[in-house]
Amino acid sequence: MDGELLTVGTELVLGLTVDTNAADLGRALAAAGVRVLRRTSVPDDLAPIRDAVRSALGRTGLLIVSGGLGPTRDDITKRAVAEVLGKPLHHDPAILAHLEDLYRRRGIARMPDANRSQADVPEGATVLENRWGTAPGLWLEDKEGRVVVLLPGVPAEMRGLLEHEVLPRLRKGIADADAKTQGSAPVVRSRMLRTTGIAESALADLVGDPARFLPPSVTLAWLPSFDGTDLRLTAWRLPGAEADAALEAGVQALRPKLGAVCYADGETDLAAVVLDLLADKGARLATAESCTGGLLGERLTNIPGSSRVYRGGVVAYDNDVKLHLLGVSSETLAAHGAVSEAVAREMAAGAARVLDADAALAVTGIAGPTGAAPGKPVGTVWIAVRWRDQLRAFTHVLPGGRDAVRRRAAQWALDYLRRVVTGVV
Amino acid sequence: MDGELLTVGTELVLGLTVDTNAADLGRALAAAGVRVLRRTSVPDDLAPIRDAVRSALGRTGLLIVSGGLGPTRDDITKRAVAEVLGKPLHHDPAILAHLEDLYRRRGIARMPDANRSQADVPEGATVLENRWGTAPGLWLEDKEGRVVVLLPGVPAEMRGLLEHEVLPRLRKGIADADAKTQGSAPVVRSRMLRTTGIAESALADLVGDPARFLPPSVTLAWLPSFDGTDLRLTAWRLPGAEADAALEAGVQALRPKLGAVCYADGETDLAAVVLDLLADKGARLATAESCTGGLLGERLTNIPGSSRVYRGGVVAYDNDVKLHLLGVSSETLAAHGAVSEAVAREMAAGAARVLDADAALAVTGIAGPTGAAPGKPVGTVWIAVRWRDQLRAFTHVLPGGRDAVRRRAAQWALDYLRRVVTGVV
Repeated sequence: MDGELLTVGTELVLGLTVDTNAADLGRALAAAGVRVLRRTSVPDDLAPIRDAVRSALGRTGLLIVSGGLGPTRDDITKRAVAEVLGKPLHHDPAILAHLEDLYRRRGIARMPDANRSQADVPEGATVLENRWGTAPGLWLEDKEGRVVVLLPGVPAEMRGLLEHEVLPRLRKGIADADAKTQGSAPVVRSRMLRTTGIAESALADLVGDPARFLPPSVTLAWLPSFDGTDLRLTAWRLPGAEADAALEAGVQALRPKLGAVCYADGETDLAAVVLDLLADKGARLATAESCTGGLLGERLTNIPGSSRVYRGGVVAYDNDVKLHLLGVSSETLAAHGAVSEAVAREMAAGAARVLDADAALAVTGIAGPTGAAPGKPVGTVWIAVRWRDQLRAFTHVLPGGRDAVRRRAAQWALDYLRRVVTGVV
Repeated sequence: MDGELLTVGTELVLGLTVDTNAADLGRALAAAGVRVLRRTSVPDDLAPIRDAVRSALGRTGLLIVSGGLGPTRDDITKRAVAEVLGKPLHHDPAILAHLEDLYRRRGIARMPDANRSQADVPEGATVLENRWGTAPGLWLEDKEGRVVVLLPGVPAEMRGLLEHEVLPRLRKGIADADAKTQGSAPVVRSRMLRTTGIAESALADLVGDPARFLPPSVTLAWLPSFDGTDLRLTAWRLPGAEADAALEAGVQALRPKLGAVCYADGETDLAAVVLDLLADKGARLATAESCTGGLLGERLTNIPGSSRVYRGGVVAYDNDVKLHLLGVSSETLAAHGAVSEAVAREMAAGAARVLDADAALAVTGIAGPTGAAPGKPVGTVWIAVRWRDQLRAFTHVLPGGRDAVRRRAAQWALDYLRRVVTGVV
């Protein structure tokens, strides 16, 4: 099945909002077997929405639209689509009752009048219940069987409706078509190997020419970020089972080339990898953060179940906190400065001790834009890893602005812990 | 001047890459006075690129294209655009020499043959030198004066060329037009008021009908997120000075309606607002985090200069840490449980004491997906604020998944501190 995406919002075309809805929709549709042929964004105006809907339906039979629903947007998308499909709007008392009930449950006796237009529905449309907000989604089909789906623009509402209302209907349509073609309908599927701690060019040398080892239907995309470089393998337009087999063959061929720089097969965060490693050993983890200011703790506790392993940490932003809560000695601090190997080591040792942990990570550095000292430029970071009886320290001068330095430092810290625990430093 | 954007890349339509180039381009062009009417993304295929270029040029006189340049993409965008504009490709020996020199300087004696196509240039095109990579940008004009600009898809290269080659040329074009119209060339400008701690519908009631108080050329956009709702005022197609005056009038009319829920005029993060408030009072801040796991510390230390105010904090994820580092009493913990008003209060008081601070924020809650208890559903959060001799506590049951609960809890905590310090709780 082929389809197109249309995101509606003046903010989107002005670049004031990054269009994450388009990316979320594209990924979910591709995974469900819809080939997305085009994405368009237009402002909140009737004429460009009408024009974009009309030309998309001239090319494909499925258009997913997000944004321009709801009272503050004048329900402009609904009106434009109703016009193009020639379906007059009718008032739906059931939606109105549902909206009024929603407001009552929120303790607001009288629903704002502006919300009444949300109860207007194009003739013949299926209403998709929005459990995450007020604007319902709509599923419309014209007489030639072309489908237009309208979703709200608020990302959480869009994703809720997509997952619970739209994808099940699309999958059923694709499965029905699939049954007719005996399972040979082509899909696009991906797998990802994640690497960190290696420059993209050095990684390219490890990988070599992908054409020599990947199946012909599988391509390789390089996705560099602050956290490392992800390698995405994509199988194009194969029947489902063949796509999975080609991807598996690709992963089997690629992974051995990567060695220890590959930390995950899939979307897994490095923090989850580290927590699993430590959980397997029955070990407990503590953190001591200066320049990352809580980012390491945040990464770790973002993983559900992290409390099995993670005890907690100290954000030792001020030097007093390093002295009083982590037991760093004032002599060490005076002799070497806060951003030094000696202080990083004492922070890690102190965190393991005061938080009663088998493993501890400490980070101290100069995130910028100020704070540079002779021999210690902005980006200088010391990381110390305590693991049982080992205490190791590592340093880097990390590139980029404040945010980049902090994020890279947290990723390096987690990776050094992974390497020390698995013995591949 | 009106324009459109086209981003080329199969990864973009599949949603495997979020289209930050489109947002960067939209923002930069709007600021330079170009009104972006539409954004389109198509895969790396000749036919859809040709079709998208042709239809964009049917609507506007300026099209900026990024992606699909360079050897790994087969230079497909250049070929498609050359075809649509009817300009044959010619080999440019100067570009070839430049590329060969680039490779030599990188220590590669022989440039890969694939790169040779980068030296092919459509007839009459201006070559825009790429100092950030290998694929040069191109500036093309057809005989009706319509402009197509081709930029590489690698974000750093796109931004470099945009800033140094494209915007100066566009600004000159706009200034020339401006001189003819005596400074009246229209621009698009925005200002933003940020609110938090109020539901979007309640905010809508506070604001009322924007048409009654905003200047006629200014529109209001509602941008809800986990952190609250931002209100963006945009002045459309006015000369620069008039746009600024209309926005100022709009802000003056809107801000009094918002009262204490408005925490910033501009892009400022609430963490920066709180740090400034405390810095003005010469006060020092500490944090004690359970369910947010370091997110509050991360938000605070993300602000340059936060070390003037922020001492540090304790991530008390395990209950032992609450007892031993923050001095929460084991009786309180046993009687009320970790997610309780009493424990939140003792955490805040303990953080202020052990970290020697005038202000302290404590957060304890159930981020989910597990951990709910009778009377304490997932999303239950207790926040305590210590400010000098005051100790206040607040509770919410926050909606959404783990990430949403944590991010909302951190924002509520910062907002309660702002409110307690300014006396508007």
